[in-house]
Amino acid sequence: MNEHKTLNALLSGIEAISTNHSGLFSKDFLVTWEKGEDDLRMILEVASVLKQMREGNISPRIADSGLAVSIFRDKSTRTRFAFASACNLLGFGLQELDEEKSQIAHGETVRETAAMISFLTDFIGIRDDQYLGEGNRYMRELAAAIDDSHSNGILPARPGIINLQCDMDHPTQTMADLMHLQEVFGSLDALRGKKFAMSWAYSPSYGKPLSVPQGIIALMTRLGMDVSLSYPEGYDLVPEIVEMSQQQAKSSGGSLQIFHSMEEAMTGAHIVYPKSWAPLHIMKKRTELLNSGETVRLRDLERECLNNNKEHIHWEYDQRLHSVTDNGSALYLHCLPADISGVSCHRGEVDASVFEQARLQTYREAGYKPYIIAAVMFCYLFRSPAGPLRMILERNNARRYNG
Amino acid sequence: MNEHKTLNALLSGIEAISTNHSGLFSKDFLVTWEKGEDDLRMILEVASVLKQMREGNISPRIADSGLAVSIFRDKSTRTRFAFASACNLLGFGLQELDEEKSQIAHGETVRETAAMISFLTDFIGIRDDQYLGEGNRYMRELAAAIDDSHSNGILPARPGIINLQCDMDHPTQTMADLMHLQEVFGSLDALRGKKFAMSWAYSPSYGKPLSVPQGIIALMTRLGMDVSLSYPEGYDLVPEIVEMSQQQAKSSGGSLQIFHSMEEAMTGAHIVYPKSWAPLHIMKKRTELLNSGETVRLRDLERECLNNNKEHIHWEYDQRLHSVTDNGSALYLHCLPADISGVSCHRGEVDASVFEQARLQTYREAGYKPYIIAAVMFCYLFRSPAGPLRMILERNNARRYNG
Amino acid sequence: MNEHKTLNALLSGIEAISTNHSGLFSKDFLVTWEKGEDDLRMILEVASVLKQMREGNISPRIADSGLAVSIFRDKSTRTRFAFASACNLLGFGLQELDEEKSQIAHGETVRETAAMISFLTDFIGIRDDQYLGEGNRYMRELAAAIDDSHSNGILPARPGIINLQCDMDHPTQTMADLMHLQEVFGSLDALRGKKFAMSWAYSPSYGKPLSVPQGIIALMTRLGMDVSLSYPEGYDLVPEIVEMSQQQAKSSGGSLQIFHSMEEAMTGAHIVYPKSWAPLHIMKKRTELLNSGETVRLRDLERECLNNNKEHIHWEYDQRLHSVTDNGSALYLHCLPADISGVSCHRGEVDASVFEQARLQTYREAGYKPYIIAAVMFCYLFRSPAGPLRMILERNNARRYNG
Repeated sequence: MNEHKTLNALLSGIEAISTNHSGLFSKDFLVTWEKGEDDLRMILEVASVLKQMREGNISPRIADSGLAVSIFRDKSTRTRFAFASACNLLGFGLQELDEEKSQIAHGETVRETAAMISFLTDFIGIRDDQYLGEGNRYMRELAAAIDDSHSNGILPARPGIINLQCDMDHPTQTMADLMHLQEVFGSLDALRGKKFAMSWAYSPSYGKPLSVPQGIIALMTRLGMDVSLSYPEGYDLVPEIVEMSQQQAKSSGGSLQIFHSMEEAMTGAHIVYPKSWAPLHIMKKRTELLNSGETVRLRDLERECLNNNKEHIHWEYDQRLHSVTDNGSALYLHCLPADISGVSCHRGEVDASVFEQARLQTYREAGYKPYIIAAVMFCYLFRSPAGPLRMILERNNARRYNG
Repeated sequence: MNEHKTLNALLSGIEAISTNHSGLFSKDFLVTWEKGEDDLRMILEVASVLKQMREGNISPRIADSGLAVSIFRDKSTRTRFAFASACNLLGFGLQELDEEKSQIAHGETVRETAAMISFLTDFIGIRDDQYLGEGNRYMRELAAAIDDSHSNGILPARPGIINLQCDMDHPTQTMADLMHLQEVFGSLDALRGKKFAMSWAYSPSYGKPLSVPQGIIALMTRLGMDVSLSYPEGYDLVPEIVEMSQQQAKSSGGSLQIFHSMEEAMTGAHIVYPKSWAPLHIMKKRTELLNSGETVRLRDLERECLNNNKEHIHWEYDQRLHSVTDNGSALYLHCLPADISGVSCHRGEVDASVFEQARLQTYREAGYKPYIIAAVMFCYLFRSPAGPLRMILERNNARRYNG
Repeated sequence: MNEHKTLNALLSGIEAISTNHSGLFSKDFLVTWEKGEDDLRMILEVASVLKQMREGNISPRIADSGLAVSIFRDKSTRTRFAFASACNLLGFGLQELDEEKSQIAHGETVRETAAMISFLTDFIGIRDDQYLGEGNRYMRELAAAIDDSHSNGILPARPGIINLQCDMDHPTQTMADLMHLQEVFGSLDALRGKKFAMSWAYSPSYGKPLSVPQGIIALMTRLGMDVSLSYPEGYDLVPEIVEMSQQQAKSSGGSLQIFHSMEEAMTGAHIVYPKSWAPLHIMKKRTELLNSGETVRLRDLERECLNNNKEHIHWEYDQRLHSVTDNGSALYLHCLPADISGVSCHRGEVDASVFEQARLQTYREAGYKPYIIAAVMFCYLFRSPAGPLRMILERNNARRYNG
């Protein structure tokens, strides 16, 4: 497995792809499908090296000072800590933009905010996942504003923007998921021909973003896997992303099939990802109502959506479904927190006993995210990451003094 | 006094006890009574060295990067800043877990949170002091979860947990209090035979935790002091801690006596600690009502408690009481903020003129806490702190450039 | 322009004034008018050097560890980030004092808080601008408390206090404004004889502090400029500051004239600063009512003030006014965010097309603030900044690794 390769072997691997990738250096990380396969592989390799360095007490710090800014427009635990950890590992301080404590509510424009938070800033991480059609657009608007200030000489350097979940994609999550698959199956090549089942699952909550299922099908169809997507009628994803994923599956020698039954989709699956999301049409209407401030109709919509969900309360990943997967032992993925029946809610996405079997594996899956984020930062900063990584290895600074 | 010892003499002292202590390295710091006397002495010695280093502009930084996480489930100024200062001094960045901004409220389990905040984390500091029977239990639950993730290979390293006040103890506070006594009286040995009066005092507020009085009797009875504990009938502390303290007093050659009069308890005292707390039975009922969500009965309980308190409004530390202490000049301790009559409330724990005499001493007392916390961290990281401390002394990095 | 001077030339300039200034080393930075002209010039020079170093990837970090504390009693984006950036650049960690999460509301005195947050603290930055007669007083009260603790040996070192906007002055803003003027006009000397128009402008909001207009006239009258101050009758500034500015204008060979017409004030102006503020008598009454907790009368006062403002809705900086300035091309200054008509409000301080022409320049103006703050810190720490700056230049540490 990758973790057991020596650091030197890893570095040689990085040097081998160093010349091909080009979509990362000085480029924002907004959605995986704008990155080449070599780019994604580079991120995974750099993340592996950084992880081994950290675990071997070698400090990969590459900034004597520097600032990263985070903007969380939705609650977050694990991504917040993953981002904080990545910044800290590379030597960047963290300053959160709390929009309630700022003057933004009082008429500051996005392009103004973009400049104001960027003067001495190296990275901006953003979570904006609540409104369909808005989160990703906001990131691009901010990026354009930063480009404008940079090209006009206002900003001497351009901070890189990292998508920490939007309405379209959750790229640091799906890349962490992929890094987990790489470790479990041994390599990216070993994923070819594997069956991956991304499925809707029941949740008693409302308004969960589409970013994870969309990000998953958009990423996993590029690796030659047979991806199945299943959901109750009416819970479609954004059509452009589904179509693009279908194209990708074709090119990679895999497939993408859509089902309206968990069991059909999961039969023989090597990997399952049962996870709730809100229906596309509800999310669209919700964004409209939020923008027009119609709170009464919003409450009606929420009630309607929760009632809709309840009709599919049997979409729960349980022992029976687990038994139809490949060898009755599919790898269970989840971005966490999962809605676990009888634990965090009455009825939810997954049966408690199934989750318990998989629990530690889901923690391991989450543990790759800090390194994915650090690798994205590293590849933004250096055109050829191999050189700086080799310098770090040779410099051999202790991360923590160890006697 | 200790502060005037040379750093080299202090280091020799540390080397002398280095071989005996064992309760600190890779062990959480949850209550003082789980630590040996050599452990506690080691913390004080290391804290002294770190303080002298800082004041002599020698940087004791031992991490090139690293993260500490704080969880404050109750308001805090001085402990918050003490923790931030300790982390900063040793080179750790700080990331606060704000439970309102996280997804914890939405069904995340403690063991999941434990893993999610720990991937690249060196220390977790926790304040959870509001509910009797809960705070300390939460810390142990978190610790067990971290152990589980660590032993299963999810966490490559195990973050240390530091109790920043729970329902049972406030160990970084009481150790700072003890460090203050050591400085004022010259040594720990000089405390033998001294009379220490821990007393309840009136406050117009409700629900103050028992952790300080409990922590004080549990710590001070180990030093051969004659400890008195006084409170109005009904304001008992947790019986197990009182019994344990009585045992400890016996072993150390000191004593622990309980009074229901401030004057009796304080006559001839060398040290007094007048401080309010809520009655045990009220705190127990409060926890029950909070858990069952009975807000009306909670308000009734609060009213009842405040009325009860008022019957003891004369339990105020004033000039008359001060005059019955040893030489009329007992050392006044307080964890701050004190309820000062006529300053922060109409009637409170202490008379304004008495507090004013003692005020700067209480600030000095508070000033040891950052070093106690840093010492606890240091002893968690290094089995023999003397070696790394000597390295720091010889390395002699300036904390701040000074020309 | 200053930015094109070599670092060595800048350092020689600093060495030349190094012997004259004296108002910065170990002195708080509360209002510009307590600083000598050599002090202010020193801040500008050091800020220029730090900016060039940062942009040349030379790290001016002078602390291995250290803490800065910020206290924001009002919303802030740009000053918050400017302060965070300055701290980070020099190597100080940042800990915000959030008064809601602290015990301050519960009876902690200012002098106690002052000590509690200062034990290992190098700097305290404070924004307290909402109540006339209170913000600056609070800073001085805190400073006196810190002096008291320091002189009594409680604090081994004295943190420096930096005014991040009070009711009297906004000195890091006005110094950033001045640095911008220096860059645009080539030097401070080139400002002599220039016409600077500080004018009230209409805003649909209420209670904007007087600190910016006061700080501007108090600073710009020292540079030999012909300063005009214009506002509708009743919108006077604090008389002592206006009188002092008049004296200063006389000494510097400039002038200060008051108008009640934007057009008169701006005719032939080289620099304009149209910005709203609340009338002095309203701010005084507001502070009274807030202190006595009269919420109904407060609401009445707000309504009255907004209605008053509306009578002056034509006080908007538009193309017509811009055309009467020198060559129809005065430099537009604003501390941001501006109330832009049709963008952030229906009618506001400035016409959208005029603002758009000036927009990038206002961003550039804001970009000097982090360096002004860092320079203030630097001059607090070092009696002769030239030495440490030269050391940094020769040490030549990379701010960020660059291969």
